[in-house]
Amino acid sequence: MKLSELGEFGLIEVIQGIVEKSRRPQYDSWRRLRVGIGDDAAAWQGGDYAQLATTDTLVQGTHFDLNLTTWRELGWKALAVNLSDIAAMGGIPEYALLSLSLPGDLEVEAVTDFLQGVVELADRFQVAIAGGNLASAPNVVITLTVIGCSKDNRILMRSAAAPGEQIAVTGFLGLSAAGLKMLREKINLDAETAAILRQAHLRPTPRINEGQVLLRQGVNAAIDISDGLIADLDHICQASKVAARINIDRLPVHPAVKASFPDYRELALSGGEDYELLFAADKAIMEKLKLTLDCPLSVIGEITGEKLPSRVTVVDSKGNVVAVPKTGWEHFKR
Amino acid sequence: MKLSELGEFGLIEVIQGIVEKSRRPQYDSWRRLRVGIGDDAAAWQGGDYAQLATTDTLVQGTHFDLNLTTWRELGWKALAVNLSDIAAMGGIPEYALLSLSLPGDLEVEAVTDFLQGVVELADRFQVAIAGGNLASAPNVVITLTVIGCSKDNRILMRSAAAPGEQIAVTGFLGLSAAGLKMLREKINLDAETAAILRQAHLRPTPRINEGQVLLRQGVNAAIDISDGLIADLDHICQASKVAARINIDRLPVHPAVKASFPDYRELALSGGEDYELLFAADKAIMEKLKLTLDCPLSVIGEITGEKLPSRVTVVDSKGNVVAVPKTGWEHFKR
Repeated sequence: MKLSELGEFGLIEVIQGIVEKSRRPQYDSWRRLRVGIGDDAAAWQGGDYAQLATTDTLVQGTHFDLNLTTWRELGWKALAVNLSDIAAMGGIPEYALLSLSLPGDLEVEAVTDFLQGVVELADRFQVAIAGGNLASAPNVVITLTVIGCSKDNRILMRSAAAPGEQIAVTGFLGLSAAGLKMLREKINLDAETAAILRQAHLRPTPRINEGQVLLRQGVNAAIDISDGLIADLDHICQASKVAARINIDRLPVHPAVKASFPDYRELALSGGEDYELLFAADKAIMEKLKLTLDCPLSVIGEITGEKLPSRVTVVDSKGNVVAVPKTGWEHFKR
Repeated sequence: MKLSELGEFGLIEVIQGIVEKSRRPQYDSWRRLRVGIGDDAAAWQGGDYAQLATTDTLVQGTHFDLNLTTWRELGWKALAVNLSDIAAMGGIPEYALLSLSLPGDLEVEAVTDFLQGVVELADRFQVAIAGGNLASAPNVVITLTVIGCSKDNRILMRSAAAPGEQIAVTGFLGLSAAGLKMLREKINLDAETAAILRQAHLRPTPRINEGQVLLRQGVNAAIDISDGLIADLDHICQASKVAARINIDRLPVHPAVKASFPDYRELALSGGEDYELLFAADKAIMEKLKLTLDCPLSVIGEITGEKLPSRVTVVDSKGNVVAVPKTGWEHFKR
């Protein structure tokens, strides 16, 4: 069978199976491992607190188009997508390793611009660039690894959602996907809107501080939205063995997206790369979060233990089920 | 200027410059960083001991040829080259993250075979596979990150060699390069020799235990040989601001290589990918190591503070300087 038939999530399960079989509880490393394959970041016990590590790759042609992004934006984003995984665990990022596979005919200035983007974001969240690797390759492949910790010793996990909890999301949905659409289709928008959309797609700000607030306020289950709202909510449901119902009329769609993109609901549901935090918590915690978070917080649905037609069901305000054409990004499937 | 003109080591210096400028001593992460860009692994203070992290990438076409390696061997080697970096710091590897960029038309079996190679070596050194990333890409790019520690709190560093110290190397040199040559040029050798060479090139065993012995016995300066003996000794000399003189007649060339490869000296000096440890220490430590190491140890030269014609000078037993045509592998340069 080919990867294109099995798909990314099928392959993750296969890999998880092989790695689980290789688990040796008598080894110190395995014994201390708290979260392995299948969450936003790995977590293990390191002295008094949880150590976190995550790695993410951006492939030319798959994740970015050098005609649509500057190198500096690419550097920012390569770090941002990793920091977002640390945010989704409620963690503090500390060190980054940078592995660059590049063609020899690339200009040195491209790499220095890229680095400027990386160090700009690293500085913002007090991350130290600690090392990396260089290799020649036919096309650009960027892998960043970020290592951090949770001083709290607790961590946010995909697998901790419970029936009865509300589902909420930080910020706005669909901005990044609208930005990609604007860039690809050369859609003309007023300068302010264009800047907001470009920023959302190419310079997303990871919700590091917000993740730590969620953790402190007692949230247990979270994920960052990279594949798309429905796909990532489905990851939470699968890991937590629950189902979810979300109300399409409560999605926080940015006015700029609503005004210029007739398909704004699809962008918000399945566009992906929002790098917002999607999480579940009981109502009392949500009320506290509304007072403590510095960003918009929208309750969009609830976790349920009921048998629903699918793990994630989208309804409108009248309770009618809304069909969703595309659920989100999956590698290898085309 | 293009990367092919600047070369890998020039680009590392440029990146190091940008990252150094971004260093903020007031941040906790930067304050705790002990070894940044430019050594085998990054190291920072984590509670009572040194934390280590390293990342290495294998690119199809640059680092491996799918006609010459099995997927299982490739999995082993992808982890081995990272463990070797931890060995070069005298560290204990603990966790690995696995980032695979793969074409959609690849067979799932290729990936499962690859994983078997990874978990086989991981088990040998009690490393837990903790997470990773999957992405679709036009060709295979494998990045592994290994995180570990040094319980001793000391670490081996490239920058710690001192004049008067002897230079030594574990195991044999040139076996891996001879193996690559045998595979590429389809050289017919007896089965036993062919197996030794294939193993050296495609299933190298990282010197994890040996690195820890070096550290315990008081060695300060080490590197693993990936680029080639001369190139990696040059890295030690540059980082330590010293020069080195090695005796070509003392290189530990394996009898199988000597017997079948007339260019065995060049393979040993510049072939690379030996994944042996190259280190410097005073004579008394070398004597202790000869009694405690389980592998061959060869003293091949000495560190000197003298001004020599180049940082690494190769001489024969009569003291005559030997010209070396090629010094080792460097990415981007062709």
